[in-house]
Amino acid sequence: MHRLVLIRHGESEWNKANLFTGWTDVDLSEKGLKEAEEAGKALKEAGFCFEYAYTSYLKRAIKTLNIVLEQMDLLWIPVEKSWRLNEKHYGALQGFNKVEMAEKYGADKILLWRRSYDVRPESLSDDDERNPANDIRYKNIDNPMAKPHTEALCDTINRIVPYWENTIFPKLKECHDIVIAAHGNSLRGIIKYLKNISDEDIVNLNLPTGIPYIFEFDDNMKLTKDYFLADEETVKKLMEAVANQGKKK
Amino acid sequence: MHRLVLIRHGESEWNKANLFTGWTDVDLSEKGLKEAEEAGKALKEAGFCFEYAYTSYLKRAIKTLNIVLEQMDLLWIPVEKSWRLNEKHYGALQGFNKVEMAEKYGADKILLWRRSYDVRPESLSDDDERNPANDIRYKNIDNPMAKPHTEALCDTINRIVPYWENTIFPKLKECHDIVIAAHGNSLRGIIKYLKNISDEDIVNLNLPTGIPYIFEFDDNMKLTKDYFLADEETVKKLMEAVANQGKKK
Repeated sequence: MHRLVLIRHGESEWNKANLFTGWTDVDLSEKGLKEAEEAGKALKEAGFCFEYAYTSYLKRAIKTLNIVLEQMDLLWIPVEKSWRLNEKHYGALQGFNKVEMAEKYGADKILLWRRSYDVRPESLSDDDERNPANDIRYKNIDNPMAKPHTEALCDTINRIVPYWENTIFPKLKECHDIVIAAHGNSLRGIIKYLKNISDEDIVNLNLPTGIPYIFEFDDNMKLTKDYFLADEETVKKLMEAVANQGKKK
Repeated sequence: MHRLVLIRHGESEWNKANLFTGWTDVDLSEKGLKEAEEAGKALKEAGFCFEYAYTSYLKRAIKTLNIVLEQMDLLWIPVEKSWRLNEKHYGALQGFNKVEMAEKYGADKILLWRRSYDVRPESLSDDDERNPANDIRYKNIDNPMAKPHTEALCDTINRIVPYWENTIFPKLKECHDIVIAAHGNSLRGIIKYLKNISDEDIVNLNLPTGIPYIFEFDDNMKLTKDYFLADEETVKKLMEAVANQGKKK
């Protein structure tokens, strides 16, 4: 048997402030740190023992992973970081308040930008300081996908699927347990692929933060089972909370 | 120009308790965490920007590195971990008090085990729970050097030099700045190699904890300069403190 564990990072400082984050490298909040710690404890207690780990280039995911691994006494395992696991790029919305943007552009447009599969938010200009081409992390990467000015969910998924197919999946075949600590939309890409979810339905999947999501594969690498490492009621509540982000409070 | 930075991890819980540590996976103390934070701040202020990092399989070094990278906003860079960078294995002494061991075996013998180049401390037995062959980290590594029952400094150095030559040095050629966060004796191995220090003299090099040690190389990869990122007086005091460890207080 092989087990893949997905962990969506916990609350960040900007989640808390209700700002669009995307590729902005925002830190975890105190609550986010705590969520990571709890995830690590739950995974250890459930007997997981990762041999390999993946995360994004963004510290809220990397720190979530580091805290999980520390709780499990697995800080020593190999960790591979990739921009392909970054959150969806939110274009010109990055850094702005979700409610204010709904007032500026209209709630319908914001909902479309946030929840449609293939409509991109307003794009960054080349000289915008938020342009990834100006960031040391991405400027030496040849692939233009590493320098988005905005992304629809389909763009995010298009950069993740090759990474899943060529890098993560072959590694999972060699291992018993691996973990990916990443973001709501990048993890949607992997879940869509694994569960063959339609373009229409994937936008309604609201992954809870900090709750390990387990995928079990048999010896032929066929997906046999997927479940959250938490009781159903907790997962439901957390999913609803995510779905309601950005609504006026 | 190319710059290599060596960082010896700060105080661990067992340094504080004056126990032999070796390959035991002991955590940093509060002071050790603080030392790592200060090292990261100093490196950032001095304009270092690492493109690649190396560390051991032991959490006191890994956490030191993670804290340094976080302070420098470089958590996203690739990190490679290797058992070859682990501390010298202290054999049967691991877990015992330095002063008590001096009383049991005699101060001269302990000094020999701690400070000679090629005399090994008493060995672990095969069924000792401290045997690395029983540790998940090492049990699947083919190389017998990854399962020592004890080590003299020469053994530690013999496992590090190939890693330096085949892995770290080629990477340094491609990069401007790289960092290694490791241990007193594994770093001695690299310093001995780089500065061509004799077997007799290397045992007297007492690397201060938490102070970045910089090696500058020209475009032909010739070592041109080495210095600590701290004033001379501070370095001297810290070196003396390390040299005096294990003496009766």
